[in-house]
Amino acid sequence: MLSVAGWLMYALNRSRLVAPVSFGCHRYTSAAQSAPNILIDMVKSFIPPLTYDQHKGQSGRVAVFGGCQEYTGAPYFAAISALKLGADLSHVFCTQEAATVIKSYSPELIVHPIINSDKLSTTSEETSTWLERMHAVILGPGLGRDINTLKYAEAIIEIAKEKCLPIIIDADGLFLITQKPELVKGYKHAILTPNVAEFSRLYEKVFGKKPREEEPVVCVKSLAERLGNITIVQKGFSDVMSDGDKVLVCYGEGSPRRCGGQGDLLSGSMGIFTHWSHMAVESGNSK
Amino acid sequence: MLSVAGWLMYALNRSRLVAPVSFGCHRYTSAAQSAPNILIDMVKSFIPPLTYDQHKGQSGRVAVFGGCQEYTGAPYFAAISALKLGADLSHVFCTQEAATVIKSYSPELIVHPIINSDKLSTTSEETSTWLERMHAVILGPGLGRDINTLKYAEAIIEIAKEKCLPIIIDADGLFLITQKPELVKGYKHAILTPNVAEFSRLYEKVFGKKPREEEPVVCVKSLAERLGNITIVQKGFSDVMSDGDKVLVCYGEGSPRRCGGQGDLLSGSMGIFTHWSHMAVESGNSK
Repeated sequence: MLSVAGWLMYALNRSRLVAPVSFGCHRYTSAAQSAPNILIDMVKSFIPPLTYDQHKGQSGRVAVFGGCQEYTGAPYFAAISALKLGADLSHVFCTQEAATVIKSYSPELIVHPIINSDKLSTTSEETSTWLERMHAVILGPGLGRDINTLKYAEAIIEIAKEKCLPIIIDADGLFLITQKPELVKGYKHAILTPNVAEFSRLYEKVFGKKPREEEPVVCVKSLAERLGNITIVQKGFSDVMSDGDKVLVCYGEGSPRRCGGQGDLLSGSMGIFTHWSHMAVESGNSK
Repeated sequence: MLSVAGWLMYALNRSRLVAPVSFGCHRYTSAAQSAPNILIDMVKSFIPPLTYDQHKGQSGRVAVFGGCQEYTGAPYFAAISALKLGADLSHVFCTQEAATVIKSYSPELIVHPIINSDKLSTTSEETSTWLERMHAVILGPGLGRDINTLKYAEAIIEIAKEKCLPIIIDADGLFLITQKPELVKGYKHAILTPNVAEFSRLYEKVFGKKPREEEPVVCVKSLAERLGNITIVQKGFSDVMSDGDKVLVCYGEGSPRRCGGQGDLLSGSMGIFTHWSHMAVESGNSK
């Protein structure tokens, strides 16, 4: 399970590392013995320093889109991870029935009961206004598969693209992408975080055949390339990440428990780290 | 109060132990001096090892049916026990008014506001779809005794039987079984967990007379046998368990406090342990 990973891809494109690069506790390719330290140093360099001249929100405002009648824990885990990692403000956009519950988990989140299937266009407009203030979008944790909610999710992707926001797509968001891969095609600020089963379904949709399980590096790289060099993070025993050009493999040991919620923690963390990596590269502060 | 117990019955049928067997801290029958260690080893052998090649859900998905206007704590305790013990996913199926509250206790549970007395057949169909993915059912904690809810509970038992799922029946679920013992008759994956009073009422319903309090072993064994060799776990100062063939008596010392919720912790733990014991026996990994 991923420890520090996919959010590196953007900055990695500007580094001296060559593909494929492996890092983690277990083993490294001989060509990349020093990769872990370089990567860890790079991640550290992204984190905005705690100084006294910052205003509220400058270290990051993230928006999680998810939460429906059945699923309320998933968007909470995503949003609270971003906040605990260092985001200044963490918002959740969910359905009416999920909002009260998600609010009750923590007073630290800002929760918008905005997903309303009867008023889709108004909702999208209101969301667009909110997204003006955001730095990263996480789409999918506990979103559900209601047909109107998925239409709303499509609108979110379009708005994120318009505003050039990084977008992490997980869980039910990936269900949507598997139906319509063109939604993210060529959008280089998109990161998909499928597990092995979700990856297989998306790969099959795009290539018309199942991926070869014994060649995850090749398959992840091919799919990322075919989708116009978006970033794909395939979660599994080892995590394989690619933007269609470079490949990172994480052998780092995580928890062997596979209970619900772990993917949500990752997507939330990745949301804020992605923003930080963009900030660092743009300001020339990354290693 | 039970420490490790009723879920052993299924695997015990395949062991070398003879009935009656006693275990616990206080005293053992001379014939079974080593029983506690054998049992503890057996329980340990059921627990799926934590390995790095598992997918989410493989260590167990349990479904708790319970939770109504008055009772929301009971299904929470059952569901969270299963999760904390090692299940990967823990679901609660309850009434609309209970759902928001149960959700708010923990983001780790998936809570379905599905019990709706006006739409019983639709609800049962939807539940059946959900149960396709489950490994064990716990029926009764905080279920209430609304006539429509009890009809829904009947449907759950039938669905569990159809899908061959282990089902733990406690609390208000036992109220239903006392009215209609035929619902579980002969279903060997059913476990009832009555306290002494609940046991007495069920015994009287089946045999037309009260059980003899001085002979709990005989009474529990007879009732389990008469109900077609289902498993009965009679909770009390000592816990008496039987599948109508073998008998286990647990003298293990538990908490002397008898506050509400303890039975719920047991039913939830038993739900996941029963699934594990089935898995272990089926894969030949049990001792």
